[in-house]
Amino acid sequence: MSGYRFYQRASRAFHDYPSLSKLGVLVAVSGGGGLVVLSDAGPFHSAYADAGQADMKKKKVVVLGTGWAGTSFLKNLKDPSYDVEVVSPRNYFAFTPLLPNVTCGTVEARSIVEPIRNIVKKKKFDTHFREAECFKIDTEKKKVYCRSSQETNLGGREEFTVDYDYLVIAMGARSNTFNTPGVVENAHFLKEVEDAQRIRRTVIDCFERASLPSVSEEERKKILHFVVVGGGPTGVEFAAELHDFVTEDLANLYPTLKNLVKITLLEAGGHILNMFDKRITAFAEEKFQRDGIDLKTGSMVVKVTDKDISTKERSTGQTQSIPYGMVVWSTGIGTRPVIMDFMKQIGQTNRRVLATDEWLRVEGCDSIYALGDCATINQRKVMEDIAAIFSKADKNKSGTLKVEDFKEVITDICERYPQVNIYLKRKQLKDFVELLRSSQGVAELDIEKFKSALSEVDTQMKNLPATAQVAAQQGTYLADCFNRMEECEKHPEGPLRFRGTGRHRFHPFRYKHLGQFAPLGGEQAAAQLPGDWVSIGHSSQWLWYSVYASKQVSWRTRMLVVSDWGRRFIFGRDSSRL
Amino acid sequence: MSGYRFYQRASRAFHDYPSLSKLGVLVAVSGGGGLVVLSDAGPFHSAYADAGQADMKKKKVVVLGTGWAGTSFLKNLKDPSYDVEVVSPRNYFAFTPLLPNVTCGTVEARSIVEPIRNIVKKKKFDTHFREAECFKIDTEKKKVYCRSSQETNLGGREEFTVDYDYLVIAMGARSNTFNTPGVVENAHFLKEVEDAQRIRRTVIDCFERASLPSVSEEERKKILHFVVVGGGPTGVEFAAELHDFVTEDLANLYPTLKNLVKITLLEAGGHILNMFDKRITAFAEEKFQRDGIDLKTGSMVVKVTDKDISTKERSTGQTQSIPYGMVVWSTGIGTRPVIMDFMKQIGQTNRRVLATDEWLRVEGCDSIYALGDCATINQRKVMEDIAAIFSKADKNKSGTLKVEDFKEVITDICERYPQVNIYLKRKQLKDFVELLRSSQGVAELDIEKFKSALSEVDTQMKNLPATAQVAAQQGTYLADCFNRMEECEKHPEGPLRFRGTGRHRFHPFRYKHLGQFAPLGGEQAAAQLPGDWVSIGHSSQWLWYSVYASKQVSWRTRMLVVSDWGRRFIFGRDSSRL
Repeated sequence: MSGYRFYQRASRAFHDYPSLSKLGVLVAVSGGGGLVVLSDAGPFHSAYADAGQADMKKKKVVVLGTGWAGTSFLKNLKDPSYDVEVVSPRNYFAFTPLLPNVTCGTVEARSIVEPIRNIVKKKKFDTHFREAECFKIDTEKKKVYCRSSQETNLGGREEFTVDYDYLVIAMGARSNTFNTPGVVENAHFLKEVEDAQRIRRTVIDCFERASLPSVSEEERKKILHFVVVGGGPTGVEFAAELHDFVTEDLANLYPTLKNLVKITLLEAGGHILNMFDKRITAFAEEKFQRDGIDLKTGSMVVKVTDKDISTKERSTGQTQSIPYGMVVWSTGIGTRPVIMDFMKQIGQTNRRVLATDEWLRVEGCDSIYALGDCATINQRKVMEDIAAIFSKADKNKSGTLKVEDFKEVITDICERYPQVNIYLKRKQLKDFVELLRSSQGVAELDIEKFKSALSEVDTQMKNLPATAQVAAQQGTYLADCFNRMEECEKHPEGPLRFRGTGRHRFHPFRYKHLGQFAPLGGEQAAAQLPGDWVSIGHSSQWLWYSVYASKQVSWRTRMLVVSDWGRRFIFGRDSSRL
Repeated sequence: MSGYRFYQRASRAFHDYPSLSKLGVLVAVSGGGGLVVLSDAGPFHSAYADAGQADMKKKKVVVLGTGWAGTSFLKNLKDPSYDVEVVSPRNYFAFTPLLPNVTCGTVEARSIVEPIRNIVKKKKFDTHFREAECFKIDTEKKKVYCRSSQETNLGGREEFTVDYDYLVIAMGARSNTFNTPGVVENAHFLKEVEDAQRIRRTVIDCFERASLPSVSEEERKKILHFVVVGGGPTGVEFAAELHDFVTEDLANLYPTLKNLVKITLLEAGGHILNMFDKRITAFAEEKFQRDGIDLKTGSMVVKVTDKDISTKERSTGQTQSIPYGMVVWSTGIGTRPVIMDFMKQIGQTNRRVLATDEWLRVEGCDSIYALGDCATINQRKVMEDIAAIFSKADKNKSGTLKVEDFKEVITDICERYPQVNIYLKRKQLKDFVELLRSSQGVAELDIEKFKSALSEVDTQMKNLPATAQVAAQQGTYLADCFNRMEECEKHPEGPLRFRGTGRHRFHPFRYKHLGQFAPLGGEQAAAQLPGDWVSIGHSSQWLWYSVYASKQVSWRTRMLVVSDWGRRFIFGRDSSRL
């Protein structure tokens, strides 16, 4: 019995003091294989704990979505003076970069998800989570309309409204089919955890169907033809994972089928991984060729039926129909219908996604923020504000500017219009003053000369990529703004308002690119790190392991993911049809 | 790079020499918490390896089902002179005693399954697995008709036939609804892994639905009312697991709901766990009362609608309707339709399941064996054979028997009719001779006296319970018979054929009861071991842990189950809606 008492006490200790459990896992992890696991979990000792603002009317923050943006916002929000309500059809956060691994069982689905209630339960502010989908936003009444994801006994779905003071839209995107007929009905997507689980089942289904004695050799080849559409990182990683799964695990279990399997990767552009360095693209294309993955670039999918996928070759214009066993569609992202409706409602037509300013505020709305894949920052152009900038610098209203006049506003210009800095770097100019001098060679500028000096700056503007990294940084940034809302109201820290007076409350959002991975299978990966540092091979795969282990949202998922890797290494992947 | 080479080599070593990986896990397990893990994996060095019978026409053995019986048969079959074909709708074996744990995420679904191809891939004989369901058996043509579990592109299902020389039927049973209206449509069963996964999702669904702001307090109570029907070990364990899940994990995450949850256990009989010792029943009933689980005995379910469950009290005859959020139906097993059809076909009407003789051969069929939950052994009665026994013993055909005459056949009688031994033990008689003497008190018996001495023996016959333990032992037994088919043909080892001549080829199947567990939640379990040894409490739970870890079908699942227990201990159960 005393043994049991120890157990009880230990169990309670682990539950009550999460730091203890962290220690336990750290020991387990570092004992397991010398893997470097870096924790990004900082100490969240809140400065607001004893602020005693209980009787103040709390501001209601409504967060739509529990993906990278929403979760990172929730994780970093600390100010207890908010009342937070989260609405999302998923009651968990999923570590989506590992989804391709889930498709083949390298990592289990449960290992990459963390209940959102677990993430927020230690927060000082009140949080409510609602498993529902927002289907309408009323900006006038400051209300969102939600519908439960579950059918009630009566066949309908529960509907309700939620009031907000601040609305944070982080609903992500959906897969983009480019209206290709038959894709929704016949292809698999790879955006949600359920998608990955379905793909895993379908792969095994194909192998089991091809094992039936009544199926002809030709039919078997069709069933075991796996087609991946889209040569981006997700499509490439999935194709590589599937190849590993087939050669490392399924070939042993289905020996008669291993020579009938074919994996085809279709890419409409000229190369796969075209957002990466050319060296990575070339390496990946070569590796796929060696592995026997059939890579077809310049091949546009025009139709998918229940049996065939039809492609059109860019070079020849010919169309071709190929029978398949499974198609996975991974060609980029499209806008969710609710976001589309909302954009119409607020007059943002002719846009792909919600436009926000550099502070992630939705343009044309009050107290509404949007971040992650459902939004894009509509970077202000220098040329739009050129007159205002000029007049702000021209303090004595002389109509001409001396270089010295700029000194005061240069920092603000560079912060407000980040394209200026990028342009300077590209042209290898030392600073803004040199830019003005280089193009004019004079010490005094009028507005026309000023315009012509800056005329090319706006060409450097780029939209941020729709990645987890951007979404996570935006969430952290916005939470930080919310945490210091009051403080910055009194002491604004942002750049000068060139069109208005005073300063902006906050620094604008600035994305810091930390690099990108493309796992290529066979324990090899490509990594492109800032400064065009490219690394390809087995060492990058180990870097990938450490980074992905360290970036997990909780110690629980970190332990699970690492032990899944170990399990795969020792026993291979599971092929049970579950 | 040298690090990678080590990795590659180590990985290959682990894959190629499973004994190495076993070692690895054993180290991991014994380092993990001092848990005693006993391996039941014996050394499978086949004596047939170099038998050189390749050119002989191999006998085709068809196994229907991959549950406990079928898998245990396949695992123990060693004779390479067979050609084995396995037909089952599941391509994996599931460790079903852990299903109640899967419903709440104490153990993951994937941790208790092992692909059947993994289990048979090291066999010396040829094996083919077909993921399909048998829907008809043709005993004349020795053929089984099968249908794929998957729909083809054309909407239909692949159908095919398989020829057999020997047929092993191990298809298990289905849940028994006793034709109660509404059960199939509205209740969850707990027989398959998918059932457990569905229950897990539904529990979370109920909590999420009850968290919606538009749901009234009264409605919340209804949604959070979980009803378990059936007080057998499965129902009891599920109720206990659910109670633990709610109190240990969900109460923290859904603090406003914890007081609204209600668990009701309905049992038609007078007590729960009625196949166990009375002490265990009493302890379980008390524990449930303390835990706040509403235990209603003598309560028969008469109807289930989508909102209410109607019960009839045995004592008062009153019917009552209770609203519920989820119903789990676990009241026993029923016969699969294909078995029912087969029984009609071979003239076994008026029976619940397939009847076999003591050698597991289906009565009235040639070369067909049935084991596990789909079959029952139709134990031969002494009274049916009494004349044959008498005449076999009466060698000189004198019409009377002396006790000495029996000496030669006593062992055979006791082996052929095991009820004799049970009767002796119960009456505390030393041996068979004493039985004859005790009732007659004379040295010579005629047939009538012999009959009267044995008249009560047959009352000791009992059907074997429909448990995993029985099925597994039957599979092992049958595989052993198949392994020694030829040997025992020449040298029969079974008891005398009382009605025929010579001896039976094999010893009849004999079940050895190793005990039974009933986990009761809160790290407590009840164990009833042979010899009426009863143990209740935390120590039994630890015994349960060691036995269940040791009984896993592979080292992979053993590691996974043990690490799931550890994960639950440190981090609790996952409540993501997946």
